[in-house]
Amino acid sequence: MKNSAILLVQCPDRKGLDATIAEFIYRHDGNIRHFEQHQAGEERYYLARVEWDLGGFRLDMKDFDAAFGPIAHRLGMNWCIALGNHRPRVAIFASKHDHCLVDLLYRQRSGELACDFPLIISNHPDAKRHADFYGLPFHVIPVTGENKPQAEAQQLELLAANNIGVVVLARYMQVLSSDFISQFPMPIINIHHSFLPAFVGAKPHQQAYDRGVKILGATAHYVTDVLDDGPIIEQGVVRISHKDSLEDLVEKGRDLEKIVLSRAVRWHIENRILLYANKTVIFE
Amino acid sequence: MKNSAILLVQCPDRKGLDATIAEFIYRHDGNIRHFEQHQAGEERYYLARVEWDLGGFRLDMKDFDAAFGPIAHRLGMNWCIALGNHRPRVAIFASKHDHCLVDLLYRQRSGELACDFPLIISNHPDAKRHADFYGLPFHVIPVTGENKPQAEAQQLELLAANNIGVVVLARYMQVLSSDFISQFPMPIINIHHSFLPAFVGAKPHQQAYDRGVKILGATAHYVTDVLDDGPIIEQGVVRISHKDSLEDLVEKGRDLEKIVLSRAVRWHIENRILLYANKTVIFE
Amino acid sequence: MKNSAILLVQCPDRKGLDATIAEFIYRHDGNIRHFEQHQAGEERYYLARVEWDLGGFRLDMKDFDAAFGPIAHRLGMNWCIALGNHRPRVAIFASKHDHCLVDLLYRQRSGELACDFPLIISNHPDAKRHADFYGLPFHVIPVTGENKPQAEAQQLELLAANNIGVVVLARYMQVLSSDFISQFPMPIINIHHSFLPAFVGAKPHQQAYDRGVKILGATAHYVTDVLDDGPIIEQGVVRISHKDSLEDLVEKGRDLEKIVLSRAVRWHIENRILLYANKTVIFE
Amino acid sequence: MKNSAILLVQCPDRKGLDATIAEFIYRHDGNIRHFEQHQAGEERYYLARVEWDLGGFRLDMKDFDAAFGPIAHRLGMNWCIALGNHRPRVAIFASKHDHCLVDLLYRQRSGELACDFPLIISNHPDAKRHADFYGLPFHVIPVTGENKPQAEAQQLELLAANNIGVVVLARYMQVLSSDFISQFPMPIINIHHSFLPAFVGAKPHQQAYDRGVKILGATAHYVTDVLDDGPIIEQGVVRISHKDSLEDLVEKGRDLEKIVLSRAVRWHIENRILLYANKTVIFE
Repeated sequence: MKNSAILLVQCPDRKGLDATIAEFIYRHDGNIRHFEQHQAGEERYYLARVEWDLGGFRLDMKDFDAAFGPIAHRLGMNWCIALGNHRPRVAIFASKHDHCLVDLLYRQRSGELACDFPLIISNHPDAKRHADFYGLPFHVIPVTGENKPQAEAQQLELLAANNIGVVVLARYMQVLSSDFISQFPMPIINIHHSFLPAFVGAKPHQQAYDRGVKILGATAHYVTDVLDDGPIIEQGVVRISHKDSLEDLVEKGRDLEKIVLSRAVRWHIENRILLYANKTVIFE
Repeated sequence: MKNSAILLVQCPDRKGLDATIAEFIYRHDGNIRHFEQHQAGEERYYLARVEWDLGGFRLDMKDFDAAFGPIAHRLGMNWCIALGNHRPRVAIFASKHDHCLVDLLYRQRSGELACDFPLIISNHPDAKRHADFYGLPFHVIPVTGENKPQAEAQQLELLAANNIGVVVLARYMQVLSSDFISQFPMPIINIHHSFLPAFVGAKPHQQAYDRGVKILGATAHYVTDVLDDGPIIEQGVVRISHKDSLEDLVEKGRDLEKIVLSRAVRWHIENRILLYANKTVIFE
Repeated sequence: MKNSAILLVQCPDRKGLDATIAEFIYRHDGNIRHFEQHQAGEERYYLARVEWDLGGFRLDMKDFDAAFGPIAHRLGMNWCIALGNHRPRVAIFASKHDHCLVDLLYRQRSGELACDFPLIISNHPDAKRHADFYGLPFHVIPVTGENKPQAEAQQLELLAANNIGVVVLARYMQVLSSDFISQFPMPIINIHHSFLPAFVGAKPHQQAYDRGVKILGATAHYVTDVLDDGPIIEQGVVRISHKDSLEDLVEKGRDLEKIVLSRAVRWHIENRILLYANKTVIFE
Repeated sequence: MKNSAILLVQCPDRKGLDATIAEFIYRHDGNIRHFEQHQAGEERYYLARVEWDLGGFRLDMKDFDAAFGPIAHRLGMNWCIALGNHRPRVAIFASKHDHCLVDLLYRQRSGELACDFPLIISNHPDAKRHADFYGLPFHVIPVTGENKPQAEAQQLELLAANNIGVVVLARYMQVLSSDFISQFPMPIINIHHSFLPAFVGAKPHQQAYDRGVKILGATAHYVTDVLDDGPIIEQGVVRISHKDSLEDLVEKGRDLEKIVLSRAVRWHIENRILLYANKTVIFE
């Protein structure tokens, strides 16, 4: 919504990177609202996010690549540019547990998530009424052991047809195949209902219950083709006790999953995340 | 310090357990201050902690076993009795990282921990000045790959000679052998500097740093002969970010470890812990 | 839903209270699932919650008062009895900010809140579509400085006509008059969007922003005729920073308010709350 | 310890501020390690912290003011410069409750706080043994209603004689007079054992206990001549319940106070705090 531009940069550190970026924006009469730069690791890898007002900026953003590209190239920058008022097209994959789905839809409608949801896919019809309530397209694609390749092909077609920029797995209970992941070139965000890397895989609440942990977790992460192993975006926790049954864990987990997933989605669509060394850098 | 008795009971549930316990105490003119009973699992296993004033209680506690034992036996109770003013004799094992050790000593001195520390053992001499400050015996027993059996034999002798009832591993960096664990029949409490079961074993901070988690944990647990696998007593967490170096994790972890370990020790010495199904039940 | 009975007791402490209660239940073949008793204050005021299975209980609950009343009277107990499968009739009062309303409706539908919502009243029509979605009656009663007495009379009529047992103010932005409170004899639960007693009254988010606090709070409490002064049921917090605008506070507050209010409502309808000395005792 | 320079800047926003700062540092061959800039309020007030390596920086820091001053003046900047390896001289004021004092001394010794403690003042002799343990000067200055002006004069003399840059009130139970505050021109950091602005003034734990709050707080803030009203640096919370006595609150508060105060002191001595509009901006 905001009329701003966001520049994300990562590269081996060298002198003058901040000066070059700030000077470039100033030269075109941009007013920088946020400048955040840090260095990671022993090797001091350079990581930066810069956001500036486009009101008064005297460079047409269509020409940004041509103007900034050569400078960035000379300094070895790995960069991307985004517009604050661009609304990413997000697809939601859901299953029977609809709390994350309903939560995302409500947040988007109330203005908290500046994105569009042109596509909801579920392997169960149950959540359709929520999609209908918000006037959003809802596709039921059942997935079984046998039809998985065809189901994923159908999903990929819908993603392409709807020009989707990011997929959110909102407690989607199916594991995406490596094929799917390699064929969909855009980010996929998943919510896993445990404190990763504890309790990878199936039934994490049951695992947590059996282990007797005192704190329940949830983890939002980017999907890679190793299960539950992608870069972690956000995590949250809630205390549990011996009085909590497995059912109580499931209920306490729901609030956690909603908050952790929605925060991860928000940071992603607001261009606050850099990926570096299988980790995320979050510019909050 | 408190002139009270604490009864811990666990057994398969049946009708009349609470009535029998409460009636027994009332019959001897005891005044129950806390009665907490819950049931765990599908099978509704009975778990209870009852604390009553001994002022006015007309049964000599020396005779408690003889009086209550047959009743408990008839109902299939697994039980133990403790006195509120009994001060457990606790041995602390420490290494170079002395923050947990110093914290425990301070808390004990300030009255927060109602126990005695007749024995501190370390494989490094560094922390001796803290033991001296509090006037506590400090034994340096270096441990190497070669001398481990002898070192542990020496430790076991000291534990026996000092009539120790519980060992606290306060960031003791050595793994106790199965032999040691089987020869020391009393509980051993360890603090592991991760959110177990994530990051078992060596260098959990490094593991957490490499995995890019957003929350750092610490876990106090009873030691069994499977490494970092015993019943969890308490866990705590603190948020971290990409700005935190490995060194920052170590520092943030220190506060966590102090609080989590001291809470576990306190619950143990206040007889607030029941062990059930490789889990702890905490009567806070 | 559960076929259980819940007894809440408070009174000056004396010996034999636990024994009397447990023995009474056992005598009628009840199986106690949870027994929790504590004592508050210097004077050791007795506070207890006991829940037992009604399967096999050989006293018709219609006769409970007659059977237990005289015993309780003799011991000076202040008590109440509830049935686990009784679904309280809850009225929700809402305004424009509908996040708490929508959250409560979703939780009730998903089985987390074992109550019914036969009545929703709002001074704005906006949230009607959510009530419609869940098939619940929605009444718009605009409130102005002038019509307040008439509006409240209309509200009281609806409460009486619908046999309401508890009112939940789900970010209802009107202050209820003393008249209303004295004429409605049942509990009223409010969510105040600050950490009470900080930021009493209007615009607590603005007050928090102006004061520069580092943590944002929300408080669920029973309503008394002193504004924001009733017994606190639950509180929650979330960290904020100088980067957060007032708008960010409002958004961060929403998650907090939903969780804190729904937890308070749940504890209330599950008969987990005792009122004592203008405080709540929560049997979690 | 670090060979770096830290520049803190605040001023009305205008274009080119980041560019000017970054370019100035680059021109002298400085390598910026952290650049963090945000804008506060409706008016978008400019707030920045920049830290760069002095290794290779070709401007003698003695000449920094002369070189940067005119530039900053031209742009209306309110600024200050600090050296990363400068160890501030911190005085601690303590009373009987010595947990914060002992905690600060331990953290400093373990390298967590890069400052010196050339002066500890207490109105009670009790904590002297801790100062002795760390080899630090300890002055007992009793304060009564009558001798307060003389006591404060003595304190001010010691502060001046020891060239103190910041005073930390580590649960110092005396209120400093306006006179003292106006005569000591350097910052004073206090820890108040409540979640300000709740429970201002005396006995906040008692106030919290009486009000029945469910969460206990602690607040570190700069001292102004309005009691407990200065800019808040950091706050922390811990859950409490009806089971907690006043004594329990005091104990739970201790951990909170140690963590919150030490974090505030650390941020202060690491030049991570800007004061703006009676609030603090924390560059974590």
